[in-house]
Amino acid sequence: MRRTIDWADGAIVIVDQVALPGEYRTLTLRTVTELVDAIQRLAVRGAPALGAAGALGVALAARQGGDVRAEADRIAHARPTAVNLAWGVSRALDRLPDGADAVLAEAQAMLDEDEQRNRAASANAAEVVLGACPRRPLRLLSHCNAGHLATVAWGTALGVVWHLHARGLVESVLVDETRPLLQGSRLTAWELEQAGVPYRVQPDGAAAAAMARGLVDCVLAGADRIAANGDVANKIGTYGLAISAAHHGVPFVVVAPTSTVDKSIAAGTDIDIEERAPSELTEFGGARVAPKGAAVFNPAFDVTPAALITAVVTEDGVFRS
Amino acid sequence: MRRTIDWADGAIVIVDQVALPGEYRTLTLRTVTELVDAIQRLAVRGAPALGAAGALGVALAARQGGDVRAEADRIAHARPTAVNLAWGVSRALDRLPDGADAVLAEAQAMLDEDEQRNRAASANAAEVVLGACPRRPLRLLSHCNAGHLATVAWGTALGVVWHLHARGLVESVLVDETRPLLQGSRLTAWELEQAGVPYRVQPDGAAAAAMARGLVDCVLAGADRIAANGDVANKIGTYGLAISAAHHGVPFVVVAPTSTVDKSIAAGTDIDIEERAPSELTEFGGARVAPKGAAVFNPAFDVTPAALITAVVTEDGVFRS
Repeated sequence: MRRTIDWADGAIVIVDQVALPGEYRTLTLRTVTELVDAIQRLAVRGAPALGAAGALGVALAARQGGDVRAEADRIAHARPTAVNLAWGVSRALDRLPDGADAVLAEAQAMLDEDEQRNRAASANAAEVVLGACPRRPLRLLSHCNAGHLATVAWGTALGVVWHLHARGLVESVLVDETRPLLQGSRLTAWELEQAGVPYRVQPDGAAAAAMARGLVDCVLAGADRIAANGDVANKIGTYGLAISAAHHGVPFVVVAPTSTVDKSIAAGTDIDIEERAPSELTEFGGARVAPKGAAVFNPAFDVTPAALITAVVTEDGVFRS
Repeated sequence: MRRTIDWADGAIVIVDQVALPGEYRTLTLRTVTELVDAIQRLAVRGAPALGAAGALGVALAARQGGDVRAEADRIAHARPTAVNLAWGVSRALDRLPDGADAVLAEAQAMLDEDEQRNRAASANAAEVVLGACPRRPLRLLSHCNAGHLATVAWGTALGVVWHLHARGLVESVLVDETRPLLQGSRLTAWELEQAGVPYRVQPDGAAAAAMARGLVDCVLAGADRIAANGDVANKIGTYGLAISAAHHGVPFVVVAPTSTVDKSIAAGTDIDIEERAPSELTEFGGARVAPKGAAVFNPAFDVTPAALITAVVTEDGVFRS
């Protein structure tokens, strides 16, 4: 599988995640404005992939000249919750005094690192899961998309599935469709289909019933920002899932590269949560599914307190606050 | 507001719930086959409304002659989970020895009773809510649709909102959109809009986050079947909502007429749960939103144990198992 985000011929090339699962195609982004638009439309999304997008965006700005720091600032603020975006921008920007080529080299090194770190983090998490769950093969539950498409390559929470599947240890994956934007049914199911891993898509509201029926051995989630105390901001619905998992004694494991940890944030309640447009809930494929002008509560993320999480696992092992 | 289901000119007339919120229109059902189809497509849905549909369906069959008991059986088994459907069929069928007019009179009496009982049950529940929640005005949370459209008239869980709103005690209602069929955004939001009650639609996965932010004083739910021990089968997602409510100390109140209680079922685990078609999850408005041939876990209902419910309230008061 190709990288979700890469550099080619002086531009950023991304897998267009809005087109999946209907079509697998790439988009070429030649300006910072195009990149910011792609980030805001979620054509590129997922915390680790956003880190890469931030770094490559600075590389793009540096090659094109102008006020690179202003452009970098625009990229860093394209979305507020994933800390990786600002981290990617900042790390690439540190090389600006050495010239545009140095910035690009740094960004490309970060892309290579991303896959390595995700592979390591998910390998560590696979061991945590095997230790926490006695049943073989495993029935896993996935929320949102934390796979290849959320990273440069490989994935975080779904990376655990790839490691365990390679060892013949996965029976199936229950896939939360993940409203409102259906990253589960559109992206995670697509990745599992490509990889030949058995899966079933479910409404987010069915997760607790699946646990009550004993169909879930472990819940796997990614993260968009991890506070110093181990609280995790992740896709809306993660928190309710963690409460249900705790209620049923089902282990709940979060997988993320260390770039997702924000030591400047003491606790999850301090994390800025993005509110998305009403149309994500009131329309579907152009058709209205709520009364005209309906108000919405549409936070893109929620915060799961560390106390509800069995382990946050990074490339360095189990995270300790 | 007209009745959701009624008898007119020798036929059953229903508000077509598949067409809302885009269009408010009625359907006239002249045969048992048309009625069964309407029930299975959820053009008429909601446990109390299904009770009325069952009774009126027997009246229709009795007037048309033929094997009325076989037709009644077909209606009673159109959907498996709501006990009211079989209850409505059975009660109307008891009058068959007295002729078709007696059956119709019984069915029409049941329609009148339905509104009276829902008004009484929701008035009782409003007092329970006021006793359990000190804040004024109240911020309520609704799942699925348990309003006018789920009953002959008035509603059960939403009936509580109508009673409290009339007294100026409702600040707003958070409306779970209720995947997969969006009865929340399509039907509940539409009813609240008609009634002038402030509301916001949210993805089902946002309910726990709303509770964590202190935005919810009480959760209101209907029921499709209530076991003798007080366990409640209701729309998928209700159980996870109840777990989250308990986690946050938010009262969770179930409102239903006594016809929803099935004393023959000892506990919720014995309730037959309907599995719905994969297309409810894999398609949306004709567009595919999951890989071709994706398997699904799509139970229409889940079971909430009595221990997680603050009170089940009927027209007789708080239900005691």
